Order: sequence, then C-alpha cells, then structure tokens
Amino acid sequence: MDLVKVRAPATVANVVCGFDVLGFALDAPFDEVTLRRIDEPEIRVIHRDNFGLPTDPQKNVAGVALQAVLDAAATDIGFEIEISKNIKPGSGIGSSAASACAAVAAANRLLGNRFSKNEMIRFAMEGERLASGSKHADNLAPCICGGFTLVRSIDPLDVIEIDFPPLFVTVIHPQIEIRTAEARGILPRDIIFKDAVRQWANVGALDAGLSKGDEGLIARSLEDHIVEPVRKPLIPMFDEIKAASLAAGAIGGGISGSGPSIFMLSVSEEHAKATAKAMEDVYSATKITYRTYVSPIASKGVQIIDSR
Amino acid sequence: MDLVKVRAPATVANVVCGFDVLGFALDAPFDEVTLRRIDEPEIRVIHRDNFGLPTDPQKNVAGVALQAVLDAAATDIGFEIEISKNIKPGSGIGSSAASACAAVAAANRLLGNRFSKNEMIRFAMEGERLASGSKHADNLAPCICGGFTLVRSIDPLDVIEIDFPPLFVTVIHPQIEIRTAEARGILPRDIIFKDAVRQWANVGALDAGLSKGDEGLIARSLEDHIVEPVRKPLIPMFDEIKAASLAAGAIGGGISGSGPSIFMLSVSEEHAKATAKAMEDVYSATKITYRTYVSPIASKGVQIIDSR
Repeated sequence: MDLVKVRAPATVANVVCGFDVLGFALDAPFDEVTLRRIDEPEIRVIHRDNFGLPTDPQKNVAGVALQAVLDAAATDIGFEIEISKNIKPGSGIGSSAASACAAVAAANRLLGNRFSKNEMIRFAMEGERLASGSKHADNLAPCICGGFTLVRSIDPLDVIEIDFPPLFVTVIHPQIEIRTAEARGILPRDIIFKDAVRQWANVGALDAGLSKGDEGLIARSLEDHIVEPVRKPLIPMFDEIKAASLAAGAIGGGISGSGPSIFMLSVSEEHAKATAKAMEDVYSATKITYRTYVSPIASKGVQIIDSR
Repeated sequence: MDLVKVRAPATVANVVCGFDVLGFALDAPFDEVTLRRIDEPEIRVIHRDNFGLPTDPQKNVAGVALQAVLDAAATDIGFEIEISKNIKPGSGIGSSAASACAAVAAANRLLGNRFSKNEMIRFAMEGERLASGSKHADNLAPCICGGFTLVRSIDPLDVIEIDFPPLFVTVIHPQIEIRTAEARGILPRDIIFKDAVRQWANVGALDAGLSKGDEGLIARSLEDHIVEPVRKPLIPMFDEIKAASLAAGAIGGGISGSGPSIFMLSVSEEHAKATAKAMEDVYSATKITYRTYVSPIASKGVQIIDSR
C-alpha cells in the first residue's frame, strides 16, 4: 500500500460548560487528504485549496503531526500529503485538528495500523500546539474517535468516549477571524470558586444527561458562567443568535471552540434546520457574511475512504 | 396513621472531585426517628441518644425541617419526634442530613406521601442551613434518593441520580471535631482556572466511569487539586491513611464531606475490609481514637420501617 485517502470531520470543542475537556464530531464539513508514501525520508505538503496555509512541513499542522508519526515509527520512508480543506482555518470548528487527524490517520494506515487511537491523538497534538501555542486535545479526541468525548487529562492522555443520544447540530460561522491564541489570552488566570462549582456541576450533569439520553437535563446543563461571558463580546450578535435558536426549538448551545462559530443542539433534524434559518435571519439583517452547517453528532470520526 | 418510624443512612458528600455536588448513601451507620402526629400545632423534640443536641425545635435540624413540612402542608396538626442518632454530629458523614431527611420522610408518610423527593430535599435543606450556615443538598440528595447523586443546582433544585456499579465504602472517623462552617471558611474565594478545568474534567470522567462501571476510570478520576490540599491539614495522618488504603486495595477516596472522616472506595467487600484494617493500623499507632464502617454504596436512601 502506498496511497491512503482520508476524511476528517469538523468538531465542536468545549460544548459550553466543558471548557478544554468536552467535544463532539460532525458529519460535515470535513477535510480530505491524500497521503503517498515516498522513499525519501522527508515530508512534502501540497495544498488543493485556497487558504494559503504554509507548505513548509515544520510550519504546517499536518506536516508537524506527520513528523511525530515518523519519529515514533522509526522508519526511513517519507510522506507526500495533498490537503483539500473544506473547514476554514480559524472558524472554531476544529480546522487544524481535522488537518492533523487526517494526516495521522492516513499515515497510521500506511504504516499498517501500528498505533492506537491514543497514540494518534498524541501525534496530532503536536499539530495543535503549532496552531494554537498550547497542547490540547478537545477537538482531536472526537475527530479521531467520533461521537462525544471527554479529555480527562492531557499528560498522561486520558480520553473517554461518552454515550450520547441522537442529537443534531447547527453551526453558524460568521466570516470574521478570532485567533485561538487570542481567545485564550483573554481568559482569566483565576476564577471565582463558586462559579467553578456551578461549572463542574454542569459538566457532571451534561455527562449524565448524554448517557441517559435525557434531553431536558442536557438542555439545563448547557450553561457556562466562566468562559462565555468573557468571549462572547468577540462574536457579533451572540446573544441574539442564541435567543433566536432557542425560540426556533434548539435545546441549547454556545460558542464552538474559541469561536467565532456558534453551535446549537437540537433533538431532530427539523429543529436543527429551523435553528439554521433563525440564525441566518439574525445575520442577514447585518453586513456579516456567514456559513451554516446542519449535521448529526457523528458517531464516526476520521475515515479511510481509499487505500491502494 | 399517626406513627411512622424511619431509618436515614449516613452519606458521603463531595466524593473527592465533586465538591458541593456529588454524594452517595451508605447502608450503615443510620439514624432512627419515630414521628407521632399530635393535635397541637407544634413540634416537640425528644432525644434518645447522648449527643446533647438542642430540643428547641427552632434550633434543632429535624425540628426546622419539620416546620418547613408543616408550612408547606398548611395543616394544623403537629409532630412529636423521637430521635435516636447513631451518626455522630460533626463526623463528616451527613449526620445533620440524616436527622433532617428522617424527619421529613416520616412527616411526608404521615401526611399521605404528598411531597416529591425534590420537595423533601428542599424541606430538609432548611435543616442543613441551620447546621452549617449555608444551603446545600449534597448529603440530602443521596440520603433521600439513595445511590449516587449529583446536585446540579440548588435553586432551582436539580438532583440527578447517577448509575453506579457495585462499590464498597470504607469510612474511618477519627474522633476529633471539624465544624462544617469552619471547614467552609478556609476555602479560597478564587481558584486557579487551570485547576478548575482539571476538576471539571475529573467530575465528568467520574460520572462516566460510574455510568459505564469502569473501575479504572473511577479510580483515575478521584483526584482533587482544589479542596483536599486546603482541608487535609485539619485531618491527622490524612496522607498516611490514603496511602495505606491504596496499598490495601482501595481504588481511591478522600475527605468525606468536610471531614474529619475519610472514605475509600473498593470494588469488593474484601478489599473494603482490608482497607479498614489498614486505616486502623495507621491510627492505632497514635493516640487518636476512631471508628470505622464498611458498607456498600446503598441503592436505598431513607426507609420507612414501621407505620401505624
């Protein structure tokens, strides 16, 4: 085998109360990469999109992740990676995670599936570190594992797959840029203990709601008194989008990752589509351009779609 | 019906990472109360133990809780309550909660079961407020509901029953006093954001571990970087008790409620008993007197044992 083609989905991290910890996978949008084995011990990056991302493998998220795979595999082959991104960088739905996971999953397949999910997430974390300046796995875990995940710890890496009921996601991406590093920079060093207690009550309750398939409990737990108040001023019309979504039948939601995308959960595709329409109506009355996506929470993460 | 006899179990609140939020019920020790209907619209408190607790109903935890029931029931009857406590006040295993829950559950039965579990917890919360100066329900919820509970919110009250695998509990109660109000007073107003993130990761993971019956995950999640470091200096030999317990086969544990009791979880009764022995050995080498208890996490909370 010397060619593998892979699809890696967008992901929503944080999930309101679960900052740096919770995340889930979407069906779409997704990135596609084609990885070819080459005999030279090097990494070549080719872009098939117009995002102007670096081709220097040491400055490219996928390149750095692939280097981590090569280092661990102790092999003298190399990779040529062709990347077709559909997830816009800086959108807040795990664009860099999708690049890194696609690259790592393709490389793992080419190398005979020698690495576990946990190892793949660790390699991809090198890419995330390049993208955001800090090591985190809350987009990587659902991108590799699919479904709903909780990252209990980064070091040692401890990823838990959470059971979840059928849920639909609406994402609106206002076409403004928020850099992850900036969005992290405005977070406080200290928080009020009482607020933290409310937050961990909600994380525990959200987990229980997901496991039990209790939609009312999920809705009540989607509350964030710590990060949302600090970050929402970066996102135009955040409160209006949220209010319109709830009025349209969504059960709850908030900032996706570090924004600017906003996500909402619904119990049916019909409600998720009505939510998309309600969100679009809010931005249509402004000069903000946007894209919306409707998808189930996807039980599958990154997928091999071709190998020869 | 004009007499109801009730048993209310000891409970462990906080459960390491879940400060103010998580709790579970034991089989033993338990308090017993006998409640009699009287025609005068008043509350009489009789003690059948030697703890010297107040008999003035406005200063007694059970009395205050009963008054909350009478107020809500808008009835002109009264109650005489006879209390036999086995759970020593100030032990950190929900002594005041057991008094309040026993009283409320007995009164509810006498009044024809007109109140829900949530309403009973709300009445009992008046007793907890008297005992500790703050309203909390992390002992009351498991005392009323049994099993493992999460209190997502006090106002409005939102109690979630968490699925859990068979687990055994060892409690050691060193005979020193820590007042709940004092133990709360030493807690910081602010905490480091990063520590809070670790804490809610552990709460979510503990929840998932309980629901899935994943003992390894439960063990890894029983971690507290916020409250335990501040409170453990109040408890003699805390680190030694913990280390000896883990060496004896317990999977994890920590301070029960606000202490001084220490609890440990084990996957079998055999391990729980070995843990008790290991704990006793630590205190036996000192002048500290103690009591130990071994019990499963009990699926039943407060129980009516007689009514006529």
